[in-house]
Amino acid sequence: MTVETTEAAKAAEPRVRRVLIADLGAHLGEAVHVRGWLHAIRSLGRTNFVILRDGSGLIQIVTPAERLAQLGPLESSVAVEALVSADPRAPLGVELTEPRFAMLAPASGPPLIDLTKPHLPGGLPFLLDHASVALRHPTRREAARLSSALVRGFRSELEALGFQEVFTPKILGTATEGGAHVFPLDYFGRPAFLAQSPQFYKQMLVGAFERVYEVGPVFRAEPHDTARHLSQYTSLDAELGFIDSWRDVAAVLAHVMAAMMASAHTAVPSVAVPAVPETLPMVHFQDALQLAGRGLGENLDGEPDLAPAHERWLSEWAAREHGSDFLLVVGYPLAHRPFYTHPDPEHPGCSASFDLLFRGQEIVTGGQRLHRYTDYLAALAARGFDAAPYQSYLEAFRTGMPAHGGFAIGLERVVQKILGAANIREVCLFPRDVHRLQP
Amino acid sequence: MTVETTEAAKAAEPRVRRVLIADLGAHLGEAVHVRGWLHAIRSLGRTNFVILRDGSGLIQIVTPAERLAQLGPLESSVAVEALVSADPRAPLGVELTEPRFAMLAPASGPPLIDLTKPHLPGGLPFLLDHASVALRHPTRREAARLSSALVRGFRSELEALGFQEVFTPKILGTATEGGAHVFPLDYFGRPAFLAQSPQFYKQMLVGAFERVYEVGPVFRAEPHDTARHLSQYTSLDAELGFIDSWRDVAAVLAHVMAAMMASAHTAVPSVAVPAVPETLPMVHFQDALQLAGRGLGENLDGEPDLAPAHERWLSEWAAREHGSDFLLVVGYPLAHRPFYTHPDPEHPGCSASFDLLFRGQEIVTGGQRLHRYTDYLAALAARGFDAAPYQSYLEAFRTGMPAHGGFAIGLERVVQKILGAANIREVCLFPRDVHRLQP
Repeated sequence: MTVETTEAAKAAEPRVRRVLIADLGAHLGEAVHVRGWLHAIRSLGRTNFVILRDGSGLIQIVTPAERLAQLGPLESSVAVEALVSADPRAPLGVELTEPRFAMLAPASGPPLIDLTKPHLPGGLPFLLDHASVALRHPTRREAARLSSALVRGFRSELEALGFQEVFTPKILGTATEGGAHVFPLDYFGRPAFLAQSPQFYKQMLVGAFERVYEVGPVFRAEPHDTARHLSQYTSLDAELGFIDSWRDVAAVLAHVMAAMMASAHTAVPSVAVPAVPETLPMVHFQDALQLAGRGLGENLDGEPDLAPAHERWLSEWAAREHGSDFLLVVGYPLAHRPFYTHPDPEHPGCSASFDLLFRGQEIVTGGQRLHRYTDYLAALAARGFDAAPYQSYLEAFRTGMPAHGGFAIGLERVVQKILGAANIREVCLFPRDVHRLQP
Repeated sequence: MTVETTEAAKAAEPRVRRVLIADLGAHLGEAVHVRGWLHAIRSLGRTNFVILRDGSGLIQIVTPAERLAQLGPLESSVAVEALVSADPRAPLGVELTEPRFAMLAPASGPPLIDLTKPHLPGGLPFLLDHASVALRHPTRREAARLSSALVRGFRSELEALGFQEVFTPKILGTATEGGAHVFPLDYFGRPAFLAQSPQFYKQMLVGAFERVYEVGPVFRAEPHDTARHLSQYTSLDAELGFIDSWRDVAAVLAHVMAAMMASAHTAVPSVAVPAVPETLPMVHFQDALQLAGRGLGENLDGEPDLAPAHERWLSEWAAREHGSDFLLVVGYPLAHRPFYTHPDPEHPGCSASFDLLFRGQEIVTGGQRLHRYTDYLAALAARGFDAAPYQSYLEAFRTGMPAHGGFAIGLERVVQKILGAANIREVCLFPRDVHRLQP
């Protein structure tokens, strides 16, 4: 009988004295063991360069011509023993020389997609069909790093403000946002739906924790085949209690958005990340309609919402007049917001809710919610909804629920707009849309 | 036309000079404004104490008898102006005196559940039906704090090791784990499934990022109505490439588990969090069967898996013999692990995979995966599976996929075992099981 113990359980890589490419600068003059993929081979007259890629970055390996022949196709996995030499022109200040290569896992042939060009070649459907190859391209890796950096900023700022992270159900017995655009599900023989948002749960949890946040998938059965809609996206949700008005919610949002952009700027310095202004420009919905109508030469009186063209015009206006990539539009018509939306006591018919526009697109929806049980019964009745399916949610508002509000940020839209990607599918690892269910 | 700017967008709570209860110790001698719920009222002879609860904690308010009558039912939301006075017996070293109360939102009557007792009264189904009230109890708040602290430790350790956070699809066209226990879904008229794990995606992403992790919901249509199964749970997934064997995966797991426990210990000092030993005790599956069989007086020869009773016995053995709450069981029979599992080259018929047992229960499954395309074709054929539905996944293994492996930690099980909760539903905010779809 053998009872072993994990060797050096405290050392992350006890058996491989491998150096990550990003750390090579600290090993100048040393012989090192690196591992990675054959990203590219460049021959400049007599000198040949193999570009190796690992999870942390790219490194140039000066390679004698006779050793090139031993290498497999590009994208093969290899191990390399080599010398770290100074190269002032290289991003890390070093290159590798005198390499000895060992094949770890050969690619079956030349990669399906050429990953050596600055931009990915091929149409988007082809690139998405072959995501396991396309995601190896530096632009796709950058989008993923940007996503995680934004989420890190979101979390750290809310943690600092005392928000509790929560994990809520994605399978619901009752649709949250009115019943349209939900995915139906067979739940042990009973009908159920995929969650369109954690809205009901984060509100109930305000009663328990006062301040909560969640990062998780939400599901919209969007029949729209557009460049900005996904059937599953990552929603960054926050909700807080004991507020005085929606202005407290907007103030937290401004904080959080600034932290997200700062985190992205630090993590991905190669990308121009916009600054969030000290004071976020803000315009009332009715004024926004007038502004956009005048600017576009249209009569928008009585419009219930901003069309994409209006959002684009307003963002250009905010950039021009206020030097800001962000614009808060407040006071959308109450009748066109969800039933849980709080009215704005200062503007009859308007809601105490807002959207945040960023470079021509809505990336955040938020505001104050109703918090009195009787207000919920009235709001549901006014829309002709039966209150019965909502009972376990409504119960929260009979037990001293304070005034509260929150917001939801659509992660992929933020990434798309920062990178200027034409299609949101370019910044989602494995997008889901009305047509796509693979890979 | 009014174009406003958010007032003091850089101040999180610009309009409320409110102090959180946890911060009151820094305001000794000051008049403060606090907000929270009426948690309890205690009368000791002539002295009355109102216990106020906010998101950050509890505080005692010395309250004259005549002011008690002005208060609403317990769990009402109130604002309080009061003086911060020293109280050496109090956890924060302070109490509030000379209070003036203002009602924010009255509860409609006495709370449905008595939240003032050390343990929640009532049966579990009743408490779950009324989660928006039950979750206000200190024990439920503690479980949520413990959950988020464990996740924080998981993320921070993996970030430090260079792992990339990813967000993967939860709606799949192909079931990942063999097709049993999946929730079927209507995806724009096509059949689809909820993801049982991010397994295929995290493997494909090793090719792009080398090291990835994800925290997210997974869905198991478990027909078992037990104290340890949920239909949706939070899976903490990690996967890494360029490994030499499953031992590299186990070493990362030991690191991560230690970081999770350290984070929990710091965040929730009231809970006895177990230490992860410097060297994790480890036993081979066949030896584990012999040990448990001898201990329980059963013949377990040829058993394909450990039954719950065996896992409990082995955990007790590890605690007794090795002083460890954790035990790694390695080398499960290959035929009983998923098709992507790598064989153990040192033990024919055994897999290069492991489970981590914690206090009598499996909380982690992990190991090395196959990484060669031809090995996948052989493994699928050996199980009689058609390779066609897996094509977009298998493509990743034709493009130089290195040896890799990973693990998945079931968050709620870890929390259940740390707290010694009899039922996993006690530590999940809104559990889903074969019977429960509400709230």
